[in-house]
Amino acid sequence: MTTVIFPKMAVIGCGLIGSSVIRAARAAGVVGTVAVADASPEHRQAIVKLGYADLVTADVAEAVTDADLIVLAVPVLAMGPAAAEAASGLKGGAIVTDVGSVKGSVADALLAASPDHAFVIPGHPVAGSEQSGPDAGFADLFNRRWVILTPQDRTDTPYQDAVHRLTAFWTALGAQVECMDAGHHDLVLAVTSHLPHLIAYNIVGTAADMEEVTQAEVMKYSAGGFRDFTRIAASDPTMWRDVFVANKDAVLEILGRFTEDLQALSRAIRWGESDKLFDLFSRTRDIRRGIIAAGQETAEPNFGRDRNKP
Amino acid sequence: MTTVIFPKMAVIGCGLIGSSVIRAARAAGVVGTVAVADASPEHRQAIVKLGYADLVTADVAEAVTDADLIVLAVPVLAMGPAAAEAASGLKGGAIVTDVGSVKGSVADALLAASPDHAFVIPGHPVAGSEQSGPDAGFADLFNRRWVILTPQDRTDTPYQDAVHRLTAFWTALGAQVECMDAGHHDLVLAVTSHLPHLIAYNIVGTAADMEEVTQAEVMKYSAGGFRDFTRIAASDPTMWRDVFVANKDAVLEILGRFTEDLQALSRAIRWGESDKLFDLFSRTRDIRRGIIAAGQETAEPNFGRDRNKP
Repeated sequence: MTTVIFPKMAVIGCGLIGSSVIRAARAAGVVGTVAVADASPEHRQAIVKLGYADLVTADVAEAVTDADLIVLAVPVLAMGPAAAEAASGLKGGAIVTDVGSVKGSVADALLAASPDHAFVIPGHPVAGSEQSGPDAGFADLFNRRWVILTPQDRTDTPYQDAVHRLTAFWTALGAQVECMDAGHHDLVLAVTSHLPHLIAYNIVGTAADMEEVTQAEVMKYSAGGFRDFTRIAASDPTMWRDVFVANKDAVLEILGRFTEDLQALSRAIRWGESDKLFDLFSRTRDIRRGIIAAGQETAEPNFGRDRNKP
Repeated sequence: MTTVIFPKMAVIGCGLIGSSVIRAARAAGVVGTVAVADASPEHRQAIVKLGYADLVTADVAEAVTDADLIVLAVPVLAMGPAAAEAASGLKGGAIVTDVGSVKGSVADALLAASPDHAFVIPGHPVAGSEQSGPDAGFADLFNRRWVILTPQDRTDTPYQDAVHRLTAFWTALGAQVECMDAGHHDLVLAVTSHLPHLIAYNIVGTAADMEEVTQAEVMKYSAGGFRDFTRIAASDPTMWRDVFVANKDAVLEILGRFTEDLQALSRAIRWGESDKLFDLFSRTRDIRRGIIAAGQETAEPNFGRDRNKP
């Protein structure tokens, strides 16, 4: 039997991720009441309609009153301000966590804004989709995905206990939890998430700006590979603008390496060094096999999307 | 009722695409007998086992004897040699086509190798998957996908009639057919297929070479976007090595534009020009909507791969 871990959960910002946290927590039975604060009237209306929340408000301090767990699910540059709005309403022992894709600067902002009687445990569920808004959420978004927590460097029992309860919460939602240093998180995610988004946005932009090739041609012949990139290039623009501002150093570092490698590849093409091309193209297959073996990807060709082809 | 368009079809090279052409042509009932030539004993054994072909041989000239349609489905640098092997066996009026991702140099090679009594009509079905070999093929691979033909600049009736029959063939397999100039094809595909593959191979290589981030971390946290790139970076290395050698000029041209745009994006991140980032990230969404509207992509989040998540 699942038991309630947090009698009251408050979710601040209820888009794809916030709404999925509520659905998954309700499905797992690990929360009692749920309060939502969202600045957007459209979002609030959608959340009321979904019927998952006991309280829906624009007032962050009202939502967090008496809450045992506060999940901040706004764009990363809005995390600090949201934590500041929550501060006055936090009860002693409340856990403040977040779902932001950047941890270093967000952790600093949450700590600076929160009172000492709350436990700040920054977090990041590595899951999502290209769709946005409360209606895009779903209960098993976190199933088999990883949640990274970047706890403070504190060994006191009450804080450790809070980390354990937050770990139990995410585990109940189907996720696997790992703790790491915020700086390392930001470098790892620059590789596995931020650079891929940057590259995808860039290639779609390059294709859109071509004069010799029409947009209609790009769309018609996109099954040659291009369409794979358009999925993540359709992600929420505000969220991603904030990520690149907040994780500038790690992103530029990884982008520098990517560009160096791309120049070497360009040179190999120019000089017809086909062995170099073949070597690279051969070793990249193993990574996909590893991702499938790690349960993070489907083994079906074309992501299985041809199954339902009309 | 479907009627036979080509009493005998010969497929030279029977991997993912060659095998899918046979399955689709059989399913549509547009071919009578089917002969296959493949240099690989393992492929030949697999094709015999699949039971789709009336003749399976290593000898290209034997396979094309009496054939009305010859489909060359080998890597692009092997197209010319395959056409040369076929030449002596070709009957008058036979259509020689191919499925290569590059058309300019392939068209030249096919024309140079083929006798005047055959009709050379280079082609490219813009469809595929990251998997390779005859067992990876499937009958509806071409359904709703585009096939580009790059016919010769000939207005004589026999040649035009051959183009019409080849168009009818692909249409019967579920595809949509468009004719264009070989040079334009190579530029369009450099954008929609070759550059995406190059970028995907490159980013997976960059991630694999990181020392500060382990391969295990790259795999675990790949759901943040990276995994999307690994699909096309798992494509056949020989096929893609040949594409970059054979379409060098167009690829380097498009790669140059991509790199320029990426440098501008890098600069915007370095200087915190968040409006520029937001503008790019907003306009890239439309392209995906267009691709979905054009029937070339699923509208489901995450390509629908979460449907079957264990």
